[in-house]
Amino acid sequence: MADVVENFADRVSSAVKRCGTPAVVGIDPQLDRLPPALVPNTGFAKLDQAVRATSEFSRAVIDAVAGVVPAVKINSAFFEAFRDDGVRTYFELVRYARDRGLIVIGDVKRGDIGSTSRLYAEGHIARPTLSGLDDAAVPDAVTLAGYLGESGVRQFVDAAAASGRGVFVLVRPSDPTADVVHEFGEKSKLYEHLAGLVASWGSASHLIGKCGLSCVGAVVAPKDPESTTRVRQLMPRSIFLVPGYGAQGASAEACRPCFLSDGRGAFINASRSVIFSHEAKRYSERFGDDWKMCIRQAAKDFAADVAGVAR
Amino acid sequence: MADVVENFADRVSSAVKRCGTPAVVGIDPQLDRLPPALVPNTGFAKLDQAVRATSEFSRAVIDAVAGVVPAVKINSAFFEAFRDDGVRTYFELVRYARDRGLIVIGDVKRGDIGSTSRLYAEGHIARPTLSGLDDAAVPDAVTLAGYLGESGVRQFVDAAAASGRGVFVLVRPSDPTADVVHEFGEKSKLYEHLAGLVASWGSASHLIGKCGLSCVGAVVAPKDPESTTRVRQLMPRSIFLVPGYGAQGASAEACRPCFLSDGRGAFINASRSVIFSHEAKRYSERFGDDWKMCIRQAAKDFAADVAGVAR
Repeated sequence: MADVVENFADRVSSAVKRCGTPAVVGIDPQLDRLPPALVPNTGFAKLDQAVRATSEFSRAVIDAVAGVVPAVKINSAFFEAFRDDGVRTYFELVRYARDRGLIVIGDVKRGDIGSTSRLYAEGHIARPTLSGLDDAAVPDAVTLAGYLGESGVRQFVDAAAASGRGVFVLVRPSDPTADVVHEFGEKSKLYEHLAGLVASWGSASHLIGKCGLSCVGAVVAPKDPESTTRVRQLMPRSIFLVPGYGAQGASAEACRPCFLSDGRGAFINASRSVIFSHEAKRYSERFGDDWKMCIRQAAKDFAADVAGVAR
Repeated sequence: MADVVENFADRVSSAVKRCGTPAVVGIDPQLDRLPPALVPNTGFAKLDQAVRATSEFSRAVIDAVAGVVPAVKINSAFFEAFRDDGVRTYFELVRYARDRGLIVIGDVKRGDIGSTSRLYAEGHIARPTLSGLDDAAVPDAVTLAGYLGESGVRQFVDAAAASGRGVFVLVRPSDPTADVVHEFGEKSKLYEHLAGLVASWGSASHLIGKCGLSCVGAVVAPKDPESTTRVRQLMPRSIFLVPGYGAQGASAEACRPCFLSDGRGAFINASRSVIFSHEAKRYSERFGDDWKMCIRQAAKDFAADVAGVAR
């Protein structure tokens, strides 16, 4: 079995090369920003209305960006808000996007101690062992909170590696209020310490692909270039999943230090600036009510903008 | 509305006083440790078999401990392993336990930046706004990962406080591999820093109950008495949810520094040592195959053992 499983890092490298861009579109289907065509006259009052619109919108985003970007990131929170109906929709969307050739990152940010993380890993990244659970609905990677240490992370990494999947461990979140924790420390900061841990968790040879990178990646927001460059050096084999571009304010140029010197090794994520582009004059003046065309064009513009900083 | 909502800390204080113990039974229904009577002849091969046994076992635990302990903690990971079928079961169990007068803690350990945490809070602790989502199935409190800072935590705290519910923020987990992160720091340690943040997040007057405690609690494992006492001093108004007793090795006496000097302010959790007590000779020799009686007796023994350290 082992010899037919392609390492996640190699799959990412091929997909980025094929699409010519490291752009990832984040699916955060916020009900109060959906295109008017999807909103009932009375607004969203019932669960089934909300689930249906969320699913329809998310599928349209996937259709619009397939072939334009190599990957999508699906934010679990927006589905968990609808309990089991939302969770069913989340897994249906993972499968839908994978069927269209996209790499799918499940943005679940789970993390616990080992005995509990084993179960989270079963639910979110492992190849299912029970009949009735579809392997095609398991995402290609998930985001993780690694704060509870190695025993919990290991459960995800082992399950991911065994099926050619990957993980992205939170190291430096984009929200400034996260700094109060991540910049804790005197001589060195917590985010640097986490970076060192992630590098060690992903360094075993069976986790490294032919491309030289590991299936254990990291979530790293671009801050000042010096500190980002240092974080990059601390994790020379990790693929970075980079939040903060677009609606959150970072430019493509600001993301450059997240890449290795050869232009590989990072995914840049944009969510709201792409999926809610029907709200932007730049797109609505050109495409009118055709919100799907707005998304497709915004994805193309985003893909082109960040293409230049990667190779 | 506001004047009819009882603060979560007051609800905890009354429930602990009523039961005479601060014991919380954790529901971690691990398939490979379920009583033989619940396991199909062929083992668990199909999703529906696993979900059915998990649900039946968990309901039996709730029936066995209701009236013995004031609260149960339901570990979401064991339900998420079954995707939407598991999540439906989780919310059914929350409701089932609340209907039996138990305070229910949803052990979900969610945490993200503000815009995403708003949705996690909607799914896990807020009073539902969409018809079709049952408020009675929302737990009385959830565990939180506060590493992404105030903007994310605030979403949960506001939603919890508005409906008389609470949160427990991870400050010092029980697993030793978590120490590599939580004991980071030179002059002070990360767990002390987190303790200070939790105290400040929970200090606003509208979050404090008549009992003087806050609806913003903390998960604090008992380590050496000196450091636990210091953590207690850093969070004088927080209820501690204490893991580590029983299967994880801590005694009732070791948990004493987690309480305030007047014996209030902590919940002690035990999971495996109670719910899998049919595996222990002490109970199986007395009750034979009656695993429900084993659980009830183990819950009573646990409740009595920790009663002495609280008031």
